[in-house]
Amino acid sequence: MKCQHCKKKAIFKSPRLCEDHFVEYFERKIGKFLDKYKIKNKKLLVAISGGKDSVAVSYILSKLKEKFNLKIEYFFIRLGIPVFTEKSEEIALKITQMTNEKLTIYDLEKEEGFTIMDIKYKPCSYCGMIRRYILNKYAFENDFDYVVLGHNLDDEVFFIFNNMFNKNITQLQRTGPLTPTIKEKKLVGRIKPLYFLTEEEILTYTKLKSLPYIGCACPNSLKSTQKKFKTNIEFSRDQKLNIVYSILEMKKFLPEEKIEIKFCEKCGYPTTSNICKFCRTKERIRG
Amino acid sequence: MKCQHCKKKAIFKSPRLCEDHFVEYFERKIGKFLDKYKIKNKKLLVAISGGKDSVAVSYILSKLKEKFNLKIEYFFIRLGIPVFTEKSEEIALKITQMTNEKLTIYDLEKEEGFTIMDIKYKPCSYCGMIRRYILNKYAFENDFDYVVLGHNLDDEVFFIFNNMFNKNITQLQRTGPLTPTIKEKKLVGRIKPLYFLTEEEILTYTKLKSLPYIGCACPNSLKSTQKKFKTNIEFSRDQKLNIVYSILEMKKFLPEEKIEIKFCEKCGYPTTSNICKFCRTKERIRG
Repeated sequence: MKCQHCKKKAIFKSPRLCEDHFVEYFERKIGKFLDKYKIKNKKLLVAISGGKDSVAVSYILSKLKEKFNLKIEYFFIRLGIPVFTEKSEEIALKITQMTNEKLTIYDLEKEEGFTIMDIKYKPCSYCGMIRRYILNKYAFENDFDYVVLGHNLDDEVFFIFNNMFNKNITQLQRTGPLTPTIKEKKLVGRIKPLYFLTEEEILTYTKLKSLPYIGCACPNSLKSTQKKFKTNIEFSRDQKLNIVYSILEMKKFLPEEKIEIKFCEKCGYPTTSNICKFCRTKERIRG
Repeated sequence: MKCQHCKKKAIFKSPRLCEDHFVEYFERKIGKFLDKYKIKNKKLLVAISGGKDSVAVSYILSKLKEKFNLKIEYFFIRLGIPVFTEKSEEIALKITQMTNEKLTIYDLEKEEGFTIMDIKYKPCSYCGMIRRYILNKYAFENDFDYVVLGHNLDDEVFFIFNNMFNKNITQLQRTGPLTPTIKEKKLVGRIKPLYFLTEEEILTYTKLKSLPYIGCACPNSLKSTQKKFKTNIEFSRDQKLNIVYSILEMKKFLPEEKIEIKFCEKCGYPTTSNICKFCRTKERIRG
């Protein structure tokens, strides 16, 4: 099987590309994303978890930062999950060494007085909320334009299906490659540069570039719905892209959500109740 | 495993029901459909293909016709597919014998001068178009309020996915349990009373009621996408329902399609071009 652009051996099937052309294709797709969503002259906070997605996006944004005049900082949260957190942190340090960007390590236990291990019920759901809270707060306080997340096409397809399975149109409305920054609500926008790339494409890129990443899954997530779903349903890359495009197209017509945003009485960050979920969780754990 | 309503053995899992309660549940669901979509005092043309879906819907509408004051007629199209058409017609005659309704048999070869076997390219797609055309024409000329189709929940989930895979939002917009009658456009509406019932539920009902149905698939359809899709993806009943509800909910917000409807220069029935696809196909086949 030959590359569709040259005579070298193709190392990827769809699109059919050799090593060099695959890297070019992958990086061009990220460049197009930044163009399309006008990510120029911005200050970005890249969330690093240690997984292949966050590592790939940190690496590539560092590579493209001059072209797009971006200011980049990496951010790692020490969640306190035995072995897994240490391994992830090693990866965060390695990629930082490779790119020479600034890395901030946020220690959940030191800063907030608890770890993810203190959460006994639905740890994945709470962990997501906690990470979103911390990232938003840090990005807001330090004047970042966007938080950068490593979500890929497979994640989005799962998100769409999961919300369709639960008839959750409101959540479908919230998805997308970019959510805007709303300063008066203390909300920093989020971008997902890998939104239109599959897991397989990202894995191939990280391997071709010899990027470090944590090969094992978080021990808390092993029984999660996402894991089960991904192993049961196989869509082609084009099918995945079209699922996402269909939802993005329909989203244009959905009415805007009307949520009254208040500010948490404890921390001052946005919430729909009087005290935000993060502060409530912290209080409950610390007794 | 016991029925959730009585102490008898459950013969169905989700919902967990015994024979009697399953039949009651199934028929109540059809009754609710007729209530919800205001199918009262109507004249209905039931399309019988011979498959379990069309047989179940013909039988049950005949059973409910007094309660809803419905006039019912069955309609079978002799498509000219060797063995399969004869077998299907036998089924249509058997169910007509059971219910004593009026059955019209439309012979494609006699009436139009060709059979489905004359179509060499994409026969399933043309067959669908031809059946829709004939049903609409007959229903319009004979003052029916609706054509009744046997489409079930699995069909609709397939339809939704297939259109999402192809980013076909316009088609997604056209789906639904009821399409309205537009007399000035010579379009008779269509209802799908089995829309919220799974294939498994329908199969169970036809077996419990000892209804005849053709056990084999149309030889033309064996390689179709739908077949492949159905065997690859397994969703639970609730997941299927929620997929359909999500799309129906989103559909409410999509803008209406703006298609200019013309009338075919040959037959006078609605089309988007000068001569309709049915007339073009007929002309091409007959040379």
